[in-house]
Amino acid sequence: MKNPRRARVDKSVCIDLGGTNMRIALVGAGGEILRRARFVTHADRGWRDIVERMARGVKELVATEGTESCTGVGVGVPGALLHKEGVVIDSPNLPGWHKVPLRRFLRDRLHCPVVVENDADAAALGEGCYGAARGIRNYLGITLGTGVGGGLVLDGKLWRGPEATAGEVGHFPVETAGFPCGCGSHGCLETVASATGIVRMALEAGRDTEIRRLSGDSVANIDAEVVSRAARQGDRVAQGIFHRMAVTLAMVLAGIVNLLQLEALIIGGGVAASWDCFGDTLRQEMQKRLFSGPPRDVRILQAELGDDAGILGMARRVFEETGVPIG
Amino acid sequence: MKNPRRARVDKSVCIDLGGTNMRIALVGAGGEILRRARFVTHADRGWRDIVERMARGVKELVATEGTESCTGVGVGVPGALLHKEGVVIDSPNLPGWHKVPLRRFLRDRLHCPVVVENDADAAALGEGCYGAARGIRNYLGITLGTGVGGGLVLDGKLWRGPEATAGEVGHFPVETAGFPCGCGSHGCLETVASATGIVRMALEAGRDTEIRRLSGDSVANIDAEVVSRAARQGDRVAQGIFHRMAVTLAMVLAGIVNLLQLEALIIGGGVAASWDCFGDTLRQEMQKRLFSGPPRDVRILQAELGDDAGILGMARRVFEETGVPIG
Repeated sequence: MKNPRRARVDKSVCIDLGGTNMRIALVGAGGEILRRARFVTHADRGWRDIVERMARGVKELVATEGTESCTGVGVGVPGALLHKEGVVIDSPNLPGWHKVPLRRFLRDRLHCPVVVENDADAAALGEGCYGAARGIRNYLGITLGTGVGGGLVLDGKLWRGPEATAGEVGHFPVETAGFPCGCGSHGCLETVASATGIVRMALEAGRDTEIRRLSGDSVANIDAEVVSRAARQGDRVAQGIFHRMAVTLAMVLAGIVNLLQLEALIIGGGVAASWDCFGDTLRQEMQKRLFSGPPRDVRILQAELGDDAGILGMARRVFEETGVPIG
Repeated sequence: MKNPRRARVDKSVCIDLGGTNMRIALVGAGGEILRRARFVTHADRGWRDIVERMARGVKELVATEGTESCTGVGVGVPGALLHKEGVVIDSPNLPGWHKVPLRRFLRDRLHCPVVVENDADAAALGEGCYGAARGIRNYLGITLGTGVGGGLVLDGKLWRGPEATAGEVGHFPVETAGFPCGCGSHGCLETVASATGIVRMALEAGRDTEIRRLSGDSVANIDAEVVSRAARQGDRVAQGIFHRMAVTLAMVLAGIVNLLQLEALIIGGGVAASWDCFGDTLRQEMQKRLFSGPPRDVRILQAELGDDAGILGMARRVFEETGVPIG
């Protein structure tokens, strides 16, 4: 895995580490994914085991590709970091990860540069380099999934904050007396604008709804997709849920745009697949709320890279750190 | 007004331009205000007249002090700017100010470096250099006055946004169906957390209140100070107004801290004089709302520089631009 300075490789191996799976890909400098692999994380086995398997996965992927070296390795981690040191301070989805020296550990095994970022930050960077935010210097990337994540890019650079947890738009308080949030607070944006929030609102709507019928009257089958199908069929309850979600999201996003003078919002994640159920309301409500200073055109864009955003963002970071021009 | 390179002067003349008054001060590099003057702005007379009087004021102040030159001139302006060019794009409090080349105009008259900033940004910088935020690298300076203004400092530098209107915390939407705001939107933070908002809530509370009695039953006498006197005397209505204000402010500020991982909030402006009526609630509500990542100590501090924050912030900017070490 040595990186000989003479022969330039311009390939990075990037990892999206999740609580359930880790996805590994070999990425070229033009953002092309050359090869992929996916492993179960086995979060319960502890960090050493996970990182050992991660290192093995990287080696196997590089060997299969028939090249002996890569420019560097990038890892997107769902947690707080000491960014410069590449140390994971804490991760809600990875039990026992406290002050894990991830970068040093991987560098010792792989003998190449290793870059570590928060996963939501990596996704925002990916969209900026190879996706919907290409050429935009000030934007927030928002992931509407099981939770609500975010990555903030200011003047073309990631704004990480001291522990790389900046961009946590999901924990913006939106309701004075709201539903309890996984973070310990209540009434966070995440309780209304995530898939989990949408399902909760659907359950709160009672038993006699179109949503229940579409789910075969099984609570376990209700997900954001079922709610959006009901909304598309004209069901008022489902439409009301997306309306509430869009109005609330618009308030927070307009506030953030007013605060930071962002040029764009990039919206991705599983719930973004229901864009037709909330996109128009989101745009209209934001337009009402934007600060009427000098005329500005805040773009509200759907993410383009799907699940690969994080991996591609890490590729950008690896090439940036190692001085490879990004295609 | 020439600035001879040989003899170092290390004094700046700084101006806080308001819709009603402009305040001018000669400031040393240690943040000491050596001399002051105050003029009526006469906003109706148009920008050329105002800027001519501004230039004359600077010359007079410097002459009185017995020195012929100063390091540079700084102006804090209540509006949107092309920052690099020193052009005022627009100002809600200064009618007719559209694309005013303020920096070029003053430089042509005063023959020294001129720096222009948004006034709320200048105040935030002042607190960072000479006031409550000394040594803090990531903070929001909030002014609770007639409106609610803000200046955002990230990694020790002002975050201005493309048109220097970033930091507009006053126009963060906080209520779905809120009171109309001067900005054209409704339910902005400013409608609840400003002196204007506090007075409005006092009027909405009806005629039979302690607030009305303290104001001699004259609506014109009701201001935030009267409401805070009533609150201190145990009046439930007045206490309720400050409670609502504190809870709402806490939600937005906790959200911003979560989003940006700020280290401190510096709270100033006329309403901050009623700190004893809302400070405790603000702290408690924020504590509930802060994202429970790695342990962090977000400081909530009262501003220290009062009305001089903006002038001192401009002094910092002048010394920064001209390479004078700040004492």
